Amino acid sequence: MAAPVTVYGPMLSPAVARVAACLLEKDVPFQIEPVDMSKGEHKSPSFLKLQPFGQVPAFKDHLTTVFESRAICRYICDQYADSGNQALFGKKEDGAVGRAAIEQWIESEGQSFNPPSLAIIFQLAFAPMMGRTTDLAVVEQNEAKLAKVLDVYDQRLGESQYFAGDDFSPGRPCALAQCRFPCEQNQQGWLDHREKESC
Amino acid sequence: MAAPVTVYGPMLSPAVARVAACLLEKDVPFQIEPVDMSKGEHKSPSFLKLQPFGQVPAFKDHLTTVFESRAICRYICDQYADSGNQALFGKKEDGAVGRAAIEQWIESEGQSFNPPSLAIIFQLAFAPMMGRTTDLAVVEQNEAKLAKVLDVYDQRLGESQYFAGDDFSPGRPCALAQCRFPCEQNQQGWLDHREKESC
Repeated sequence: MAAPVTVYGPMLSPAVARVAACLLEKDVPFQIEPVDMSKGEHKSPSFLKLQPFGQVPAFKDHLTTVFESRAICRYICDQYADSGNQALFGKKEDGAVGRAAIEQWIESEGQSFNPPSLAIIFQLAFAPMMGRTTDLAVVEQNEAKLAKVLDVYDQRLGESQYFAGDDFSPGRPCALAQCRFPCEQNQQGWLDHREKESC
Repeated sequence: MAAPVTVYGPMLSPAVARVAACLLEKDVPFQIEPVDMSKGEHKSPSFLKLQPFGQVPAFKDHLTTVFESRAICRYICDQYADSGNQALFGKKEDGAVGRAAIEQWIESEGQSFNPPSLAIIFQLAFAPMMGRTTDLAVVEQNEAKLAKVLDVYDQRLGESQYFAGDDFSPGRPCALAQCRFPCEQNQQGWLDHREKESC
């Protein structure tokens, strides 16, 4: 029987991979429903009912639909609190303070790490796949932004094993989803020693 | 006696206003600690201990520090669950599903609404304050991005009173924090009829 949890989108998308990483960490069975973005399936009326902005992933668990990858990760951690890694969103006994220690790193990943790293990945990985020329000026501009974020990450990961302390938390899969591209496809010699270590 | 909750940053910042709006909605007493960004106080060693990226706001509640405005709002709703508007982050009985219905709109505000609206506000409101020339090409480029988001908002707010249903939720103060600028300072004739309605 099919699992009640479905993730809609291509696994190539960092945002889809972010949700899949969270589901795997929480031991929640799921299936991937492919969405062919080259054919504009993410803008079809049926997809827009699941994700009104026409972005991937969309997500369904029984009759519940959720959009935005980090909101989906939060839902998975809340709804499946007792499955898999139970401390993924903080230990129950640490309450609001423990959750906030994780939330601040998820939010800064979304606001500060994601925009420049996604811009670099688009130019180095997706543009060639789409037959477009890589814009090295955009890569360079975003490298400078990303370097400042990685300085903060370096400092933080020098103080504790993971962002929010010594337990694995969603901040890690959120950033990892993006890191696999430079790690797997070290194109244009972009990935320097420090960034390899961060992955 | 001073309240144990302190928000560090200028009220002029939409991110600081976002946190203040949440605290007011939750009836949590707080004080604002000014941070003079023109003097680089947000990059000082003491501020970086509270906010490692050197951005406003920083936040302290007794000994707990939290950064990133939306993470701070989530903390306030969790830590002060029984104060003020108790359904601000979803009704207890609606559990993970109710919270996810709100989370997806907070996250899309952060990812889709915030970047173009903040770019417009910077050009129309902050650049003149800082003695810089407004770049109307940037305004125009971001207007086009924002228009697509407002189309989705229009459709959603045609279906229910607020983003996540008929109860007020943090998605509203998150977006409102940004809207007050075009609403208060309708500069350059930017604000059209529809956007006035959205505010």
